[in-house]
Amino acid sequence: MLEITPTPVAVLGASGYTGAELLRLLAAHPHVDAAFLGVHDAAGSSVGQVFPHLAPYADRTFEPLDALDQASVEAAFVALPAGRSAAVVTDLVDAGVRVVDLGGDFRLGEEDYPDWYGFDHPAPAWLDKAAYGLTELFRPQIVDAPLVANPGCYPTPVLLGLAPLVEAGQILPAGIVVDGKSGISGAGKAPTQTSHFASLDGSVQAYRIGRHQHTPEMERAMRAATGVDLRLTFVPHLVPTVRGIVTTCYGRVSPTARPADLAATLEHRYADEPFVRVLLGGPVPDPKRLTGTNVCELSVHVDERAGMAVVVGAIDNLGKGAAGQAVQNLNLMFGFHETDGLATIGVYP
Amino acid sequence: MLEITPTPVAVLGASGYTGAELLRLLAAHPHVDAAFLGVHDAAGSSVGQVFPHLAPYADRTFEPLDALDQASVEAAFVALPAGRSAAVVTDLVDAGVRVVDLGGDFRLGEEDYPDWYGFDHPAPAWLDKAAYGLTELFRPQIVDAPLVANPGCYPTPVLLGLAPLVEAGQILPAGIVVDGKSGISGAGKAPTQTSHFASLDGSVQAYRIGRHQHTPEMERAMRAATGVDLRLTFVPHLVPTVRGIVTTCYGRVSPTARPADLAATLEHRYADEPFVRVLLGGPVPDPKRLTGTNVCELSVHVDERAGMAVVVGAIDNLGKGAAGQAVQNLNLMFGFHETDGLATIGVYP
Amino acid sequence: MLEITPTPVAVLGASGYTGAELLRLLAAHPHVDAAFLGVHDAAGSSVGQVFPHLAPYADRTFEPLDALDQASVEAAFVALPAGRSAAVVTDLVDAGVRVVDLGGDFRLGEEDYPDWYGFDHPAPAWLDKAAYGLTELFRPQIVDAPLVANPGCYPTPVLLGLAPLVEAGQILPAGIVVDGKSGISGAGKAPTQTSHFASLDGSVQAYRIGRHQHTPEMERAMRAATGVDLRLTFVPHLVPTVRGIVTTCYGRVSPTARPADLAATLEHRYADEPFVRVLLGGPVPDPKRLTGTNVCELSVHVDERAGMAVVVGAIDNLGKGAAGQAVQNLNLMFGFHETDGLATIGVYP
Amino acid sequence: MLEITPTPVAVLGASGYTGAELLRLLAAHPHVDAAFLGVHDAAGSSVGQVFPHLAPYADRTFEPLDALDQASVEAAFVALPAGRSAAVVTDLVDAGVRVVDLGGDFRLGEEDYPDWYGFDHPAPAWLDKAAYGLTELFRPQIVDAPLVANPGCYPTPVLLGLAPLVEAGQILPAGIVVDGKSGISGAGKAPTQTSHFASLDGSVQAYRIGRHQHTPEMERAMRAATGVDLRLTFVPHLVPTVRGIVTTCYGRVSPTARPADLAATLEHRYADEPFVRVLLGGPVPDPKRLTGTNVCELSVHVDERAGMAVVVGAIDNLGKGAAGQAVQNLNLMFGFHETDGLATIGVYP
Repeated sequence: MLEITPTPVAVLGASGYTGAELLRLLAAHPHVDAAFLGVHDAAGSSVGQVFPHLAPYADRTFEPLDALDQASVEAAFVALPAGRSAAVVTDLVDAGVRVVDLGGDFRLGEEDYPDWYGFDHPAPAWLDKAAYGLTELFRPQIVDAPLVANPGCYPTPVLLGLAPLVEAGQILPAGIVVDGKSGISGAGKAPTQTSHFASLDGSVQAYRIGRHQHTPEMERAMRAATGVDLRLTFVPHLVPTVRGIVTTCYGRVSPTARPADLAATLEHRYADEPFVRVLLGGPVPDPKRLTGTNVCELSVHVDERAGMAVVVGAIDNLGKGAAGQAVQNLNLMFGFHETDGLATIGVYP
Repeated sequence: MLEITPTPVAVLGASGYTGAELLRLLAAHPHVDAAFLGVHDAAGSSVGQVFPHLAPYADRTFEPLDALDQASVEAAFVALPAGRSAAVVTDLVDAGVRVVDLGGDFRLGEEDYPDWYGFDHPAPAWLDKAAYGLTELFRPQIVDAPLVANPGCYPTPVLLGLAPLVEAGQILPAGIVVDGKSGISGAGKAPTQTSHFASLDGSVQAYRIGRHQHTPEMERAMRAATGVDLRLTFVPHLVPTVRGIVTTCYGRVSPTARPADLAATLEHRYADEPFVRVLLGGPVPDPKRLTGTNVCELSVHVDERAGMAVVVGAIDNLGKGAAGQAVQNLNLMFGFHETDGLATIGVYP
Repeated sequence: MLEITPTPVAVLGASGYTGAELLRLLAAHPHVDAAFLGVHDAAGSSVGQVFPHLAPYADRTFEPLDALDQASVEAAFVALPAGRSAAVVTDLVDAGVRVVDLGGDFRLGEEDYPDWYGFDHPAPAWLDKAAYGLTELFRPQIVDAPLVANPGCYPTPVLLGLAPLVEAGQILPAGIVVDGKSGISGAGKAPTQTSHFASLDGSVQAYRIGRHQHTPEMERAMRAATGVDLRLTFVPHLVPTVRGIVTTCYGRVSPTARPADLAATLEHRYADEPFVRVLLGGPVPDPKRLTGTNVCELSVHVDERAGMAVVVGAIDNLGKGAAGQAVQNLNLMFGFHETDGLATIGVYP
Repeated sequence: MLEITPTPVAVLGASGYTGAELLRLLAAHPHVDAAFLGVHDAAGSSVGQVFPHLAPYADRTFEPLDALDQASVEAAFVALPAGRSAAVVTDLVDAGVRVVDLGGDFRLGEEDYPDWYGFDHPAPAWLDKAAYGLTELFRPQIVDAPLVANPGCYPTPVLLGLAPLVEAGQILPAGIVVDGKSGISGAGKAPTQTSHFASLDGSVQAYRIGRHQHTPEMERAMRAATGVDLRLTFVPHLVPTVRGIVTTCYGRVSPTARPADLAATLEHRYADEPFVRVLLGGPVPDPKRLTGTNVCELSVHVDERAGMAVVVGAIDNLGKGAAGQAVQNLNLMFGFHETDGLATIGVYP
């Protein structure tokens, strides 16, 4: 591709962990320029004060969200707290700016918001306009979308692993269990008693048992991807790591499926995908290996004694689980190589 | 209790993590003396060389197993690698020494050993003589037993949590899933690529998916405790902590059970137990809180949308999951207070 | 000792990490009862809500500081933030309550407070009345003191290691360097950006370089213990652990001292001390080994090429560095066994 | 630069952590191709088996060292255990292959090897031919060198920080103390009791006190860089992190130097260096921020009370402390941009 000037994009919510990861990725992106760094708090600080690791941005200033001249950018990444995105995003799209929203404001149906997020959605008419940005499953919808709802961290490996198997009828939809394990960076930068090192080191804790807002997101996206309606039980756990998610999914195997069929389904489905790695017979997915990448590792196992399939997925929650996938979607939307600016080799060990 | 001389016991396998924890506990035990410290390797080393933290034992010597004069002890803790216990244990019991075996050699049925441990059991006639040492569930069998098979680490919180609910018919036996998360100390002291800090820090890894030897142990003990036959799917995970296990169990709720019934069952069952803490409506079980204790924390939750019960358990795998429960069993076997030498307040944070 | 009723003590500042550790230790103390749990914030909460690990105290309530009936206790542990202790402590002592103050309000000279703590001392006349509670070095002053200023965490291993060697003239006082490494629990329970798991995991950070308030404390106590005046350079570092401090001290060796002399000095000085362990020729001090104990490990090494002595110390900062030493001092003040309620075997690994 | 075909290089010792990091960096290098992957053990394994994170190399095979056709490569990175490099390296250079040796076999004088490495150097005539590869200090020697001895991890930040200040006479050479803190990856991939997660988590340990082989390396390079002869005391510590080193150096300030002079010296010295960041008045160096980069952060502080300068340095020990600096040197040797293939933004948090 011959490109003279890079595409200017805004990063709104640039002072959080996801924002910082976007800036790190964009610094190495051949075709995109992070032209505006907006924040809903801490405006006026320099990037160097908040994120000393982002040395190339050290003297840039975090600006208030409303200082953005919408005509100056072609796209925007929006990484704002739940409930803060909707108004910002709709304004941007109305002004012709294409948006990848990394929050939860456009991922569910209108009826889900009161129960799972605790508020009525302020712009329900927009919910059907947003493409769900799980790239490998919804590429046709994303490519021309004015607005992409980037998936939550947990749903990404769960859906990449389960959707092809449910669609193929190899895993039965009833009674699926999703057990998630995540590092703390997914909970954001604000310090709390939970994120205190002395609380988390040595700890493993289930939380929001059966009540996590990624539950309806998984169900809705599963329906959109496969046509299958299901209700799953999801229990996330916080483990003492910074980056990385492992999801372990349990579902009954169809009586007509042989164990090798499930592996074949995944292998075939993702054979040409640069960011999905199906592991067969060797190491199991491990997010440590994926630090800093946009890769999702998957494996599938069948417990024949119990008739149960186990699908394991791993990602870097700030990579494929947030900023990485957002850049992948932008690449798709703007016709760049889908791998531009994205790593496939993790920083390991 | 008026006791003039402490009861002399042997610790066989004293140079591993479980052995060290036994020595730590026995040093504070009012009625027991660790009279013999046997090892299957490293004989001749001083305790101080191998475990500098065990300062009161610093000048004691690890002796070869066969140096034990069986007449000199009344009981023995045996913490030897899988397959190494059987011969040692049967000799001891034949000589009148009461044994708590912390390995897996007496926990299963004869038919299970080839499949799950990879060897034919050398003394199958003994398998039915061993009491299964999950204290709270099998107290009557333990009190007079010559040989107690101390439970595996994972089965302890799983069975304490699930057995009363399955027995009460509140959780249905079909399709139960057990997702375990454990620190590395459960894998022993020998250094491996897996236990290398650079491998484990930042990692979460499923292992022996559907093939872990604690699976038949849980099923067999469940049958013994409740009369219910079931096949469960068990996936353990290694997380970057040293001590501590969390087990998250998923089972379908009986259509006739209300959510509060499950909590009531657990609460009632363990109301008088000093080492089982049922948490209701507040914090969820967290092994960090239990470091160094013999306590198991439990909670139960019902995902009504999906008709699924979630039972969470936590222990210190070297405490209630190994050495602590072994001491609890010894206390029961010898008529000491069941809490002698055992802590209920964890070292926290 | 024959004691019918335990000695009632107050714990003021019971909702912090040091307070919690005091409660843990007192629960196992044979002669002391934690009769009052006072806090400067969070009054009204139950202990169970704030510290679920302190199960035996679960239903006790944290009370406001001024709810204490001073006549109801014989002693008080005061663990309040810097600047908050002085008024509380002087009131207690005036009322006849013997106090161990775990903060910094009585450790320095009047002239030091503006520079190092940023305030003028409100009760300077009291500064000379407080015994400095480094038990092994100041036992005669502590035994009858109405008020004991429990040492800071860093000064404890530094002074135990250096004072005998400086006093013996084996280490020269000019140019001593103290490099400290501490876990996060020493910084308290309040969550901050620094204590966020995502900030600290993988990090090693020097802080308050040359400006830490433990610098004048070490100098003043060194003068009191040895008669030697010196100025040292102290740089503390935060490392990603919860409990534990290592201090590495560097000082020029006297030209007349042989390397073995330094080891002999420490060994001889602490031969009969239950809580100081001098390690010679084997493992170096490691706080991991001391988790939950009141022990200080020391070692000394001479770099003959450079004429430099290196003195390494390790403690559990919440044990010998705070709550443990406070209980040791109380034991001394009330004529209990100095080891009552205190562990010497750490929870390891 | 217009380059049609990438430069073929060998990586010898490719199965260790340093080898893996070289492969990660070379995969993103615009002008270099890792044409041969040699190992001294594990030959025959695929890269995918040993390092699943190196997905682009998954099907490449680790070959025995002697399978290398020296005519097929223009350069070689050699990352072999101490004592194993010398013969391999001299052969390569004799065959016209330019070498960056990442081990210690060419860093010291002949007389140092028996004392510090425990063997007589097998090819002492070569010791003066090797350029010392601390890029910023020895660029003129490196650019044309047939053989570059890449520095040890600890010496890198120590020398970058101290050399300009010693050379300027602002820090006096007598009595300098270097206190190092390192993550475990510097000790290599082979599992040992020390690198066991259960040993290291929660631990801080001094090791090889005054006897670490980087001591003479620092002294020799300091003499080469500044003309100043000195003897320093170096104590390294192992801390529970994977990547990252912090070095805290203490030296007496010249009576004629003002504090601001030291900062100015460093700032001026490294103003144009892309991989050295001098931090003034803000955050102190922290290796967490440098994960995956080739950057060294430095700061300098003066403790005026004690007349002592404190120079703090931080690097990623596998980056600027090993593989990163090796690539930087290769870039310099082959006329590539010195920053090719090297990151300056760390993966954070």
